[in-house]
Amino acid sequence: MSNAKQMLDTYPRTFNVDATLLAEAADALMECVQTCTACADACMAEKDVASMVRCIRLNLDCADICDATLRVVSRQTEYDANVTRAQLEACAQACRSCGDECATHGEAGMDHCRVCAEACRRCEQACRRLADAMR
Amino acid sequence: MSNAKQMLDTYPRTFNVDATLLAEAADALMECVQTCTACADACMAEKDVASMVRCIRLNLDCADICDATLRVVSRQTEYDANVTRAQLEACAQACRSCGDECATHGEAGMDHCRVCAEACRRCEQACRRLADAMR
Amino acid sequence: MSNAKQMLDTYPRTFNVDATLLAEAADALMECVQTCTACADACMAEKDVASMVRCIRLNLDCADICDATLRVVSRQTEYDANVTRAQLEACAQACRSCGDECATHGEAGMDHCRVCAEACRRCEQACRRLADAMR
Amino acid sequence: MSNAKQMLDTYPRTFNVDATLLAEAADALMECVQTCTACADACMAEKDVASMVRCIRLNLDCADICDATLRVVSRQTEYDANVTRAQLEACAQACRSCGDECATHGEAGMDHCRVCAEACRRCEQACRRLADAMR
Repeated sequence: MSNAKQMLDTYPRTFNVDATLLAEAADALMECVQTCTACADACMAEKDVASMVRCIRLNLDCADICDATLRVVSRQTEYDANVTRAQLEACAQACRSCGDECATHGEAGMDHCRVCAEACRRCEQACRRLADAMR
Repeated sequence: MSNAKQMLDTYPRTFNVDATLLAEAADALMECVQTCTACADACMAEKDVASMVRCIRLNLDCADICDATLRVVSRQTEYDANVTRAQLEACAQACRSCGDECATHGEAGMDHCRVCAEACRRCEQACRRLADAMR
Repeated sequence: MSNAKQMLDTYPRTFNVDATLLAEAADALMECVQTCTACADACMAEKDVASMVRCIRLNLDCADICDATLRVVSRQTEYDANVTRAQLEACAQACRSCGDECATHGEAGMDHCRVCAEACRRCEQACRRLADAMR
Repeated sequence: MSNAKQMLDTYPRTFNVDATLLAEAADALMECVQTCTACADACMAEKDVASMVRCIRLNLDCADICDATLRVVSRQTEYDANVTRAQLEACAQACRSCGDECATHGEAGMDHCRVCAEACRRCEQACRRLADAMR
């Protein structure tokens, strides 16, 4: 059991959203923050860094947006559905754009981009599922 | 002239969005990150902290979301309008919710909430103006 | 294998620091960001929130400091040992202070603080091991 | 008067550290987060991006470390001097390394690096002054 799930299990109040969806989103978001940060860095270490500039930029945006989203979904107390849902939707969009860009480089043989594209896909789906559960 | 504007003036490429709107958004977002962080802290220092829990929660969300948005709008290179616009809209929503809550406490005489409500209003407007300019 | 380790395995250049220590630190830091954020929130949901103010404050600091440290150790390119080591030491101190505070509440039966104290201990140790490997 | 100073003036408790030093540090840290983020982005927009990789990396670290430090110094409640001082020292080191690198490019005519080097210098000094006041 992940730590995110343990924290939900020990939360002192009840909450309306499904704990499994919440924990899956938190786990996917954490992973995406780290993976996109590392992918931006790996892109900067490539020989032809000029061809990676768009990928670096989207990785940086995606890491920052996932980070804020992780913090928002890690809070249950006095939760504002409008804030959380809008942030989850912005995050799904960032993961979509970054995942698409990384997937292109991954197919061309850049392994860090392949791993990162998969993390972005998982995170996009987890955000969308959680946003849908909040409607 | 703010530093944000100076950085736009020294940016090596051209960009499509109005530099004044961009710099105003960056300045308002920076201020909102700091003010909401300080307001959450001031709320925790109030005698009746239990009555401030909703305000603390919204301050924390607003600080985190403004922080990510600040970073996204501070980047011009290989800009993705869908990502930026969705994040600006999520940010405007967070500033709206936090500003409404702080305004209530501000009217009741809590000065840190009054200052913070004003920062949230300025930031909400700056985000909406910039998002509108991207349509 | 964690994603952090996969990203190190696909990094295009060589690096001097042990990949296992790096990946363990990244994993512990990620977990600590999420757990401290959730613990601050769970503390705010407790009936006697006034008695949790010190714990909330240290949780917020620890989350923010672990977040910055996670990003720094996730980058290998053009690495500056002085910056990384100082940040790892500041992070170990934040985890120590937060872990001590959470442990007290955990022993008194507050389960989210017990889980969080363990995350802080793991993170403190991972940061110290990585800082030692950089001497 | 900056917003950071207004928030200190409306803080409900007393605090031991000088309000002017605190507000100056908060203002310098905010500016450094934004400026280093924008400088990393401007470096990526340069024709010879390969020669800017070290500068981008240090800009990213400096932005992340200043961000965490900004949040820590924006909180007065249940303040832990060991945590704050270690973080201020790590931040001064990050600003030093980034400022040195940017100054080199600034002297070579890269204006965004010149503006950024100045922001790093101001921030390094503000962090050192605040850390010294905490001894």
